[in-house]
Amino acid sequence: MSLTLVIGDKTYSSWSLRAALALELTGTPYSEQLITLYRSDTRTQILQYSPTGKVPLLLCDEGAIWDSLAIAEYLAECFPAAQLWPQARAARALARSACAEMHSGFVALRTHLPMDLKRHQALAEMPADVLADIERLCGLWAECRQRFAQGGAFLFGQASLADAFFAPVAARLRSYQVALPAEAAAYVETIYQWPAFQRWYQAAQEEYLA
Amino acid sequence: MSLTLVIGDKTYSSWSLRAALALELTGTPYSEQLITLYRSDTRTQILQYSPTGKVPLLLCDEGAIWDSLAIAEYLAECFPAAQLWPQARAARALARSACAEMHSGFVALRTHLPMDLKRHQALAEMPADVLADIERLCGLWAECRQRFAQGGAFLFGQASLADAFFAPVAARLRSYQVALPAEAAAYVETIYQWPAFQRWYQAAQEEYLA
Repeated sequence: MSLTLVIGDKTYSSWSLRAALALELTGTPYSEQLITLYRSDTRTQILQYSPTGKVPLLLCDEGAIWDSLAIAEYLAECFPAAQLWPQARAARALARSACAEMHSGFVALRTHLPMDLKRHQALAEMPADVLADIERLCGLWAECRQRFAQGGAFLFGQASLADAFFAPVAARLRSYQVALPAEAAAYVETIYQWPAFQRWYQAAQEEYLA
Repeated sequence: MSLTLVIGDKTYSSWSLRAALALELTGTPYSEQLITLYRSDTRTQILQYSPTGKVPLLLCDEGAIWDSLAIAEYLAECFPAAQLWPQARAARALARSACAEMHSGFVALRTHLPMDLKRHQALAEMPADVLADIERLCGLWAECRQRFAQGGAFLFGQASLADAFFAPVAARLRSYQVALPAEAAAYVETIYQWPAFQRWYQAAQEEYLA
């Protein structure tokens, strides 16, 4: 199986990071095709691969699969032994609820705290709707961990697609130096200790230096 | 298995309609719990069931599952014989790409043409970004149908979760009297002939009349 992931800048493209972490969970080799965002020809470049004009997109034997969530489900199907979703049905249902909530929600957090893996600075002022998003986020993480982590450090114990989906949020919370309850702070640290995340993060630090 | 779907007004709640159509595809009986939207106590009412404060939400043996997409995947797993997703892997990958694109995209269309199943009136002026969304939508529908409909009237031949996700858009296009290419217009008519959609539509017509 030949897999190529079309992504945006590693510093900024949070949805690309989600798809890349999903691929890392499979353990299978894949190629990357990086398209630099925010340039005059970015849209033209992306449209060569993706009918939506957005990244990420996975090129595979079945053609093009776009959107991080469809890529995640596709990979979970193709690599059942890698257990990308939690194995218990109730845990998997909660994991999918959490990922779908991330996929369509947390709009204030996403708008006011865009992912920037080179940033180490708080916002001058945190809007109230962002604080509400962060409170909900911490509640959601706590529910996943209390019900299903069973001593593991990730949301459902071992690393899963749920962590792939929340890793960019963990990165935002650290980049923008957001004060967190101890349990949420520990989870952010878990993401930063995750080798798959570290590889992406390190590559982001080296971006634009050539 | 006991299933209760918590929904908003049938006239307005497009995401509730998607989850209801997913349930109808299973053929299994379920209960509805309708919460009237846009009232002072709406959020309090929803929070009794849903940690996100949003509808739809499915109450089932595994607890609460929220967000239309997680509900769809859960039902597809629970009722494999009903074939909620297309059976061929490539078709399923495209169906999931389309649903995920719907779930996070078409923002202009969703903003300017909110679902209102009692409306029969065009917008005074159609914003350019809505027209771009409609062009993309027609292209996506055409791709699904050309590659996988195989003579059937729905996006992937027989009714699937993809149609559940695009039915509310079909309804918007008709409610707002949007001129469409023949193939897209034929697909809108397919949705309006779908008995599961007709039941919801009829119930919406009768809402607020008591």
